Formats: sequence, C-alpha cells, structure tokens
Amino acid sequence: MSDGLRVGMLGCGTVGAAVVRMLDEHAGEIARRAGARVQVVRVAVRDPDRQRDVPLDPSQLVKEPDEVVSAPDVDVVVEVIGGIEPARSLILAAMAAGKSVVTANKALLADHGPELFDEAVRRGVDLLYEAAVGGGIPVIRPIREHLAGDRIVRLTGILNGTTNYILTRMTEDGSSLGDAVREAQALGYAEADPTADVEGSDAAAKAAILATIAFDTPVAAADVSREGITSVTDDDIAFAKRLGYVVKLLAVAERVGDGVSVRVHPAMIPIEHPLAAVREAFNAVLIDGERVGPLMLYGRGAGGDPTATSVVGDLIELARGRAAAGTITTAAHGAHGAHGVHGAEGPSGRPLIRIGDVLGEFYLLLDVADRPGVLAAIAHAFAHHQISIKQVWQEGHGDEARLVIITHVAQERTLRECAATLGDLSSVKAIRSIIRVEAGDS
Amino acid sequence: MSDGLRVGMLGCGTVGAAVVRMLDEHAGEIARRAGARVQVVRVAVRDPDRQRDVPLDPSQLVKEPDEVVSAPDVDVVVEVIGGIEPARSLILAAMAAGKSVVTANKALLADHGPELFDEAVRRGVDLLYEAAVGGGIPVIRPIREHLAGDRIVRLTGILNGTTNYILTRMTEDGSSLGDAVREAQALGYAEADPTADVEGSDAAAKAAILATIAFDTPVAAADVSREGITSVTDDDIAFAKRLGYVVKLLAVAERVGDGVSVRVHPAMIPIEHPLAAVREAFNAVLIDGERVGPLMLYGRGAGGDPTATSVVGDLIELARGRAAAGTITTAAHGAHGAHGVHGAEGPSGRPLIRIGDVLGEFYLLLDVADRPGVLAAIAHAFAHHQISIKQVWQEGHGDEARLVIITHVAQERTLRECAATLGDLSSVKAIRSIIRVEAGDS
Repeated sequence: MSDGLRVGMLGCGTVGAAVVRMLDEHAGEIARRAGARVQVVRVAVRDPDRQRDVPLDPSQLVKEPDEVVSAPDVDVVVEVIGGIEPARSLILAAMAAGKSVVTANKALLADHGPELFDEAVRRGVDLLYEAAVGGGIPVIRPIREHLAGDRIVRLTGILNGTTNYILTRMTEDGSSLGDAVREAQALGYAEADPTADVEGSDAAAKAAILATIAFDTPVAAADVSREGITSVTDDDIAFAKRLGYVVKLLAVAERVGDGVSVRVHPAMIPIEHPLAAVREAFNAVLIDGERVGPLMLYGRGAGGDPTATSVVGDLIELARGRAAAGTITTAAHGAHGAHGVHGAEGPSGRPLIRIGDVLGEFYLLLDVADRPGVLAAIAHAFAHHQISIKQVWQEGHGDEARLVIITHVAQERTLRECAATLGDLSSVKAIRSIIRVEAGDS
Repeated sequence: MSDGLRVGMLGCGTVGAAVVRMLDEHAGEIARRAGARVQVVRVAVRDPDRQRDVPLDPSQLVKEPDEVVSAPDVDVVVEVIGGIEPARSLILAAMAAGKSVVTANKALLADHGPELFDEAVRRGVDLLYEAAVGGGIPVIRPIREHLAGDRIVRLTGILNGTTNYILTRMTEDGSSLGDAVREAQALGYAEADPTADVEGSDAAAKAAILATIAFDTPVAAADVSREGITSVTDDDIAFAKRLGYVVKLLAVAERVGDGVSVRVHPAMIPIEHPLAAVREAFNAVLIDGERVGPLMLYGRGAGGDPTATSVVGDLIELARGRAAAGTITTAAHGAHGAHGVHGAEGPSGRPLIRIGDVLGEFYLLLDVADRPGVLAAIAHAFAHHQISIKQVWQEGHGDEARLVIITHVAQERTLRECAATLGDLSSVKAIRSIIRVEAGDS
C-alpha cells in the first residue's frame, strides 16, 4: 500500500461535509478498495472559525484557498464551491501545481470545459467530474467507459430533481405550479429563487456536459435550446394524462443526420416510457446506443450524501491509479469525449442542429370560438403548413371552448410558423400551450 | 499510441460474433477512446470451416484453443464459450501464459470465482466480467468503482429476461404460464428447454456474483436460496394486480444483521416500485446504498450486441491500462469484492443467512371450505404462530371458495410452520400459493 492519496478541498458545504464524513467513517473499506488511504488533509472555507459537523481538526480548516491548491502535501483537489469564479482560477492553479482535480461544478464544466480539459492534458493531470451530472448516479463513467465501444444515438434525461418533483405533484395531486413550487421550497428541494431550476438552466448545463462526452462534440450551456416548466399548466397535465402521457422536463441530446441536437424542454412521454416512472426528486438518464439498445441509469440527482458518493468514487479511482502505476495518468481516462475531445485526435466536431430543424410531434391547446367552421379553419392552417393532425378534440363550450390537438411529426420551425398562422385566425382566441410529444423508445 | 491490444477469442457464437463485428465496424472510435488499437487476431471455434457472418480471414479461425490461450501474439483472451469445462481450464491456461481474460461466463464465475480471481492475482493479470451479469447493462463496474466509497445495504434485481418476459405476458395479456413460455420460445427469448430460466438458476448465478462483489463475501450459486416461477398462477397475478402489486422474479442480496441473505424467488412488488416498470425481456438492478440511496441500472440483459458492448467496454479498459502504464495491473481493479475479496486483506466474510431466518410479508392463496367459522380457525392458526394478518378476503363461494391473505412481517420459517398448520385444518382444502411481498424502497 502506498503513502495514500492526500486530498485538499475547496469549500465545505453540504457536499463537501458529506465527502469528509464518508472518507472518515468508511476509511477502512475505502483504503482496502482503493489500495491506498484516502485522507483529507486541508479544507479551505470562507469562515474557518464557524462550527461545522465534520470530523476535522480546527487546524485543517484554512481561509486561504492557496494553502490547498499550491500545498506540497496535497495530491488531489476537490472543488465543491460551485460557480465560475474563483472556482475556475483555483482549479487551473491546482493543475499548474501538478494536482489532479475532482469537481462537482456543472456550471463551470458546461461553460469552461474545453479550457479545463486542455489544461489537464497539458499538465498531465486528471479532471474527474462524476458528481457534476446526476448527483449520486453513475453517468459520466458509464458513457465514457462502459459504452466506449458503442455509438450513442440519443440521450434523454430527467436531470433536475426540483422540476421533476414539481411536475410529480402537479400530476399526482393536481397541484398548481405555484403550490408545487412552494411545496418544493418547503422541503428544501427548491431554492428561495427557483429560477435556475424552473427555467431549465441547471438541466441545460448538465445536458451540455453529457452531449459533449456522448458525441465527442464540445457543447456549452449556451448552445442548448432551453425552455423551462413555467408555462406548463394543470390543464396540460390533465390532458396529457387523458392521452396516456405524463409531462416531464426532458434534456435531450441526439444525433440528427451528421449533427447533434441538444435541448431542454417540457415534453409529454407515454406512461410506459421508462422515464415516466421517474417520480419525485429522482433523476434518470436514458441512453440509446446503436448496439446496447436502451440503457437507463436512475437515482438521487442531488443531496450531500449521494453527490459525495460520486466524488469519493472519483477519488478512489485516482488512488487506484497511483497505487497501480505510481502516477496518475490522464490517458487512462480518455474516452467518449471530454479528454478524448481535447486529445491528440481532436473532437468529431459534429455541427449543432438548431431546435427549429428538429422533428417531433406536438401537443397544442387553443382557446377557440365555439361556432361552426372553427375546426375547418384550423385544420386548413395545419394543411397549409403541411402538418398532419393525429388527434383533435374540443373541450368545453361557449367562452370555455378549447381545442386539444396532437400533430404527426413536423419540424419545430414549421410548427411555430403554423402556430403564428393560427394566432392570426379570428376563431383562435389564444394559443395556451405548445408541448413536444416524445415517442417511447423501448 | 502503443502497438495495440491483440485479442484472442474462445468461441464465436452470438456474443462472440457481435464482439468481432463491433471491434471491426467501430475500429476508429475504439482506437481513439482506448488510446490503442483493439484487434482480434485469432478465434478458436469447434468447426473452423463453417460459414460465419464475421469480418475475419479464414486463417484467423482455428480449431485448437491452445492456439489462442498460449499464443505469443495474443494479449487478452475473451472467453465466450460458456459452461464450466473446458472454459475453466482454458482461462487458467491463458492466465498462466500471462494473459488477461474477459469473460461473459456467469455459471463459471458463480461456481469457480475464487479460484479464478486468486489465479489472476497470482499471475498479475486481470479478469474482467462486466458481461456476465445484466448483458449490456453496466453493473459490475458501478458496484466496484462508482460505489467503492459507499456501503451497499441491499441489491434487488430482475436478472433474467426470459422470466420477466413471461411474467409480463401473464400480467398484461392474461396469458397462462404455459402460453407465455411458448411465446417466449417462439421469440427466441426462451430455450427449447427453459428450465435454467424458469427455475431461477440463471438468476441465482448472477445473484451470487453480485452479492460477492457488493458484500465482499464469496457467494456461490449453490448458496443462493432459489425458487422459480413455475408455481406462479394467473390467479396470483390477478390478485397481485388487485392489491396494487406486480409479480416479478427477484434476485435479492441484502445485509441482514452481520450476515448476508441471497435469494431468488417470485415476489409481489408495489406498482410504484422502480422495478415494477421493468417490462418485457429487460433487466434491471436496484442498489440501495447507505449514502447514495436507491440507484437503478436498467437495460437489455441479453442478446449478442448488448452483451458484446460490455465485453468491448472491458477490452477498452484493458487497452487503456496498457496505453497508460505500459502494463496491465490487477491492482487497478481491486474494489468492492472480487479482487478485493481475494486480495491481501481478505474478504469481510459475512455469514450467509438462510432464507428461513429472513423477514418478509407474505401473500397466501388458500382453497377453503365455504362455511361459518373457517376464517376464525385460520386466523387462530396465524395467531398461534404469532403472525399478524394485514389483509384477508374471501373469493368465490361453495367449491370455489378461496381466501386471499397478506401477512405483516414474519420470519419465513415461522410462515412455513404456520402454512403446515393451515394445511392440517379440515377447513383448508389446499394451499395454492405462497409468495413474498417486497415493500417498496424509493
């Protein structure tokens, strides 16, 4: 057994504290499985004097992050402060000092992944990030290692537990969006300001990371077409149910021709779809591989202990590398994308397909005038845009008259043009909702 | 990039042929991701002259397995012949010649795992087996690597696609067991002799492998309590449905006190349970970790291409090890069990708990006399054995009278004793079924 892996940590919030506790309480098993001790030597925190429920000596808490990233007695830096700066600069400094890095920072990876991976290759260190997507669920390693021989066709994920919890409450209890958000806040699933969750930006950052490694193509969060759940109504949920669907906030990354489409939006999926059974705050990723077929990875996508499990898994991988080879090598981690992307042979560089060019079925809910000829006018508009209607029915009468429409496959751009035409019709009072319908794979 | 990894294969059936094709058709990506070429140099088959749909030169097909296991131009041996002998001897010979081995052979690992892993450690080679459990689903590596920092509490799996397909047909179409078996045979899911599937021995071998690595405790197939699906009737399926349950053939491995219980048996699980949504021939493993919470891995548990994906994933791991360190080291794979079990620190050696000692709820279906006092006599028998009844109702009248009973938690041994008492009652004509009810984890 070697000297062991000496860990320096940046930040000691929920995830950081859980990492420290796990390394302490499971020290024996971890040493046996890693082939080396894995020990926290120092943690940089904003306020070293604050009382914390972690098994650390007060002297191990320091204020200066430099005492972690540049310290000669630290082999690996765990970054759990989140956000872009100072996380980015500190990770680069740690790499410059020859240290490998484990991070749970999805926003940073989605926005600055290429820079960080290039630097890791240049410095001959590792950058591991299993915790950045899917909390405690193994997602990064299965894509990069298990599926390294296959070609991924499509990746569909429920990557944000807060919105999945909200949609579950709306579906199962008939809650309104507002009530469900307040319930999620009361349970600690949603922040006081739930914007990043409900607007889909958290899911978009994770989708960018997964698309990058699944398709060997650098995708940043800003490249992801994004629509949140704020426009989903209890009517949409109820009609979905009647049609045999449930509404989920999906992150989708798929090959479209030679390109890749990456998007986050609410979608109706059939109740038999494997992702339909993902309830409450759980996350899941469904991967469709050319050879392996559908593969789903499901579990807790957030929380201190689950996320810490992923961080500690990465640390053990690094410790094993040291134990086996005496050195940590980046080459051992080249895989689907990420290191592969920035390695000698470069990325496959598939073009990003804009969402307007992506095909899909759509659900529309319209407020309409309740008089003869309305359906004819609307059907004519769809026909004009060459979109076939799969199913249509009227709900309510008089001022309450609404039309529920499910289309056949159409290009999103054409559908939006059709919606604009519909909006101009005198018989259409309002377009209440447009939601994608994703067919089931199985 | 190094010389690459030269693969010798034993057997070229469905899985073997799929491995050869994948390595050929995805050669470019695999080389980039592995950091080295991965190439099949030679395949030993019973009849080298038979026409095969694989991209191999006829000269690469040989009759003598020794030309694979002892050949100096072979780095790694892939064993896909199955069965105990000659697979065992050939793997040992390959290791003796300094070659690492990738196998999909669940029966061999379940029965001779300790011998093979000891030999791998002694020879300083690797033995990888992701394909042995769950076909294309990543199961072994997530348990051994991702969860290496956590403690696994319980592992519940649907590990046999044939029986899951049969139970799905019975549940969704109301098919009888016999019809469902014939349908599975017609689709190629079940063998002409479906015994190994329907009696649960295939699932038991896989459960033994998973329990071994999850609990650092050597478990052989023979150690697994086993009950197949042959006694499950359409009545059981229908009553389960009415109670909000579905019947699945579960493999369960769990910590019970200081010991481990490993068993395969039909069970009723709540329809909201994540495994209840696993339909058709799909497999899934639900892992409950102390910190990570529930984690489910789902996908195709059999078939050439899915299983080949796992084999190729293992080959790429070996190729990366060579590319990185110039040598393949067993230490890099020590983890939850397996290598860990037989490594320097030895197994945790938890005692195996017999199924009689395991607690659970039970469903019973009894043919009873239709007269006053019957329920009282039966309730008295349960009370005598200190088992509480959670729910009971009578179905049918006269000669058709049956009693459906769900118990509270009881020890299996006590339940069996109670059933013996019930069998002696004049009012009980027959005990039709006893099936475990597994509570939902979430």
